[in-house]
Amino acid sequence: MANARPVHRLSKKLYDARVPALREELVHLQVRLKEVPSKVLLILAGEEAGGRGEVINTLSGWLDPRGVETFAFRQPSDEERERPLMWRYWRCLPVNGRLGIFAGSWYTELLRAQADQGLPAATSAHHIEHIRNFEKLLVDDGTLIIKIWLHLTKGEQRLRLAELAANPDTAWRVTDEARRNHRLHDRLARSSARLRAATHRPGAQWTVIDAADPRARNLAVAGLVARKLSAHLKRLEAPRPKAPRIAAPKSLKPAGLARLLALPLDQKLSSSEYEAKREKWLGRLHRATRAAQAAQRSIVFVFEGWDAAGKGGAIRRLTSAIDAQDYRVIPVAKPTDEEKSHHYLWRFWRHVPRAGLVTVYDRSWYGRVLVERLEGFCTEPEWRRAFGEMNDFEQQLVEHGTIVVKFWMHVSADEQLKRFREREHTAYKQHKINAEDWRNRRKWHPYEIAVGDMLALTDTPSAPWHLIPANNKRHARLQILKTAAKSIEDALGL
Amino acid sequence: MANARPVHRLSKKLYDARVPALREELVHLQVRLKEVPSKVLLILAGEEAGGRGEVINTLSGWLDPRGVETFAFRQPSDEERERPLMWRYWRCLPVNGRLGIFAGSWYTELLRAQADQGLPAATSAHHIEHIRNFEKLLVDDGTLIIKIWLHLTKGEQRLRLAELAANPDTAWRVTDEARRNHRLHDRLARSSARLRAATHRPGAQWTVIDAADPRARNLAVAGLVARKLSAHLKRLEAPRPKAPRIAAPKSLKPAGLARLLALPLDQKLSSSEYEAKREKWLGRLHRATRAAQAAQRSIVFVFEGWDAAGKGGAIRRLTSAIDAQDYRVIPVAKPTDEEKSHHYLWRFWRHVPRAGLVTVYDRSWYGRVLVERLEGFCTEPEWRRAFGEMNDFEQQLVEHGTIVVKFWMHVSADEQLKRFREREHTAYKQHKINAEDWRNRRKWHPYEIAVGDMLALTDTPSAPWHLIPANNKRHARLQILKTAAKSIEDALGL
Repeated sequence: MANARPVHRLSKKLYDARVPALREELVHLQVRLKEVPSKVLLILAGEEAGGRGEVINTLSGWLDPRGVETFAFRQPSDEERERPLMWRYWRCLPVNGRLGIFAGSWYTELLRAQADQGLPAATSAHHIEHIRNFEKLLVDDGTLIIKIWLHLTKGEQRLRLAELAANPDTAWRVTDEARRNHRLHDRLARSSARLRAATHRPGAQWTVIDAADPRARNLAVAGLVARKLSAHLKRLEAPRPKAPRIAAPKSLKPAGLARLLALPLDQKLSSSEYEAKREKWLGRLHRATRAAQAAQRSIVFVFEGWDAAGKGGAIRRLTSAIDAQDYRVIPVAKPTDEEKSHHYLWRFWRHVPRAGLVTVYDRSWYGRVLVERLEGFCTEPEWRRAFGEMNDFEQQLVEHGTIVVKFWMHVSADEQLKRFREREHTAYKQHKINAEDWRNRRKWHPYEIAVGDMLALTDTPSAPWHLIPANNKRHARLQILKTAAKSIEDALGL
Repeated sequence: MANARPVHRLSKKLYDARVPALREELVHLQVRLKEVPSKVLLILAGEEAGGRGEVINTLSGWLDPRGVETFAFRQPSDEERERPLMWRYWRCLPVNGRLGIFAGSWYTELLRAQADQGLPAATSAHHIEHIRNFEKLLVDDGTLIIKIWLHLTKGEQRLRLAELAANPDTAWRVTDEARRNHRLHDRLARSSARLRAATHRPGAQWTVIDAADPRARNLAVAGLVARKLSAHLKRLEAPRPKAPRIAAPKSLKPAGLARLLALPLDQKLSSSEYEAKREKWLGRLHRATRAAQAAQRSIVFVFEGWDAAGKGGAIRRLTSAIDAQDYRVIPVAKPTDEEKSHHYLWRFWRHVPRAGLVTVYDRSWYGRVLVERLEGFCTEPEWRRAFGEMNDFEQQLVEHGTIVVKFWMHVSADEQLKRFREREHTAYKQHKINAEDWRNRRKWHPYEIAVGDMLALTDTPSAPWHLIPANNKRHARLQILKTAAKSIEDALGL
């Protein structure tokens, strides 16, 4: 019985005496969570037979079940496998007022991969980087993350497994995998300790809880949840200073603005030349998307640009080269209230295409560093960190095999004015112009600075920005078709 | 070349002359669709090689792609297979302002099943009943449904297949299945004609379009969409009479009210007796849910009842018997704006559990015939037809293998008053009582009538109502545990 410490078991009497107050506290905290509102993500991991299931059942019994959701994350479904690794977690994130319990998570997945395949250190480090980024993103957004590791020594684990095996109701839990994990206890403990150390970060710390005594373990978990949640709510309920007024923004990286301003806009393209070339490139784009589909690669197009830069028309030409059954256009307007209850990237994650399909985002997550930055819809720290978050999002898409093609459609201020007036004077275009467009136009220069920063800070090798001069509509459309076709061909190695 | 009629082909010149006006009209109609707002479901079906894909591509090119979504419905994903047949269609229904094109639909699925398996007539008739109900439900809810059948004679089909096979870009479309469908043309044409006749219903009529000449076919489809959409918008844009005031409701089926009023409410149950029996039934319920999971059967619990009848407490006891990873509790409050944009059943369909899992609805679709009926949140025709819609929904769940258990928790008006007062005087219960509860209480008698109608009209053999006397909390909780366990055991034949 090496490793088995003498366990000082908590008596049932003491346990029963402590539970009622703890339950009441938890339920009160849930009410406050709904009022603030905020959300909690509880990640439970631990050694084999540490009692994760029992902890979750106990905790769920103590909490108001209407505010809790538990996710087990067993085998990914085919819809999940066809998207980047983190998609399945994004789709299960709790909304405001709720507590999500993840039994099994990116940690379980990574540890299993390490144990099964002896994952190379570089791959592990890379996964860890994604995990850190994901947790930071949630914490920054106001989600309380509680990470608990239920710990058993090898000797304690042996005892627990023997107990489980002896009871006909629980014997099924002692699977071959459980036995193997027991044999490998010490090696697994070392690798999980390394993983915890690498992901023990501000706002997303690990708490290791001794799981040898089930009653003490339950109280420890529930007590930790109560303390963490209480502190979280206290922070949120405190009066917060008003967000400062929005001043004219300063450029973070003037190189981007310089690139934007240097873009020549006076291209010419005759109608006949356009038509001849258009057919050629539509054909190439069609073949490229079909080849991507055959390779089960998905494609994401991002369209950003000035109001009236011609996004709609360009999207129409682009999609005419793709089978209508294979693409979806996501027009990005105001978020729905469900979307508002999540991290700002959630509403874009939910439309990430399945294998072989295409999503066209008509405006996108970049709204965060454009309109939201300039209109004060988010705070300065929020839009500042968004650059990195968006790079990481696109990186995940690309690593999964998705081809990401981003366009900024650029017109001059004069050209925009001409198009606005035309819209106002053309009966069937009037719905395309409103007071907000004119308001945005008055902020042309601040917008230029924001666009420049976006171009400089999110132009990555795997998801570069394509600047499209768009004063000439024909030229712009043709360049988009070309760029789209070539980007896909390049990604496929054609 | 039997069957090949002499085709009078539409010249390219005439076609090109007609397209611009049609496109402009379609885009204008899309703008109005967004403003009303309403939604369109375009179902495209037809003979092999009728050009469904080309029609969709053409139409998508003419419409504003931001308002269109096309769904192909190829092989169902595992997430779809684990739910009732129609779940995959529910999840793809267009939201307000949008046009959904279903290339492939319940019709494709049924016709394929008929061709492959020689589906028994009774099964077909049963499917047809579900299709009729589903389309009626959407039409009643204000969705415009346009159903188009692209028709080719056998001779025309042979020509089209030969054309496709001759072109290296399209030869892949001439699959073995396509060849077989061509051989079976006449038989398939007869069975599809029967299917169309059986599903040609008010608001969901079929239009058969001759698909021999692609250009004429495209114009015919687009023209039909424009005409139907225009008429639909005209109806919706016309000033509508105000909904009448809500009068005290009259009972539709007094037997339900009688059943409710006859329920004895004065049961006694000692604390010790309760605890002993509770353990027994919790164990049985636990084993029953595990057996259901082993059989890949999912379970839906519906909790309805008076305010303060003890739904929350009962759900807490019930879920304590189920592994937390296997159930979700859906608290039904105000719908989100995304949910509001859909049929009222949509937000319940989206939470239908996967195989082996459990969903607990804390309040449910029955809100339609209770609070919505009494508060005038829906019109009288709406709540009147809801009874049948809800029966059909539950029928689909049951046919899929889901076990549906519905509870009405009943307290007397006096008992409710006592509990309301207690809530007001107990600090940590005050959040559970508000002005609305008192308002609802003043409508006790109208509510009784609505509950009675619900009990009478939605008490079906496969999804019966269980009336739970709930003046005594212990008795109510125990009876719920018992009923739940027995219902699952019965469904599993244990």
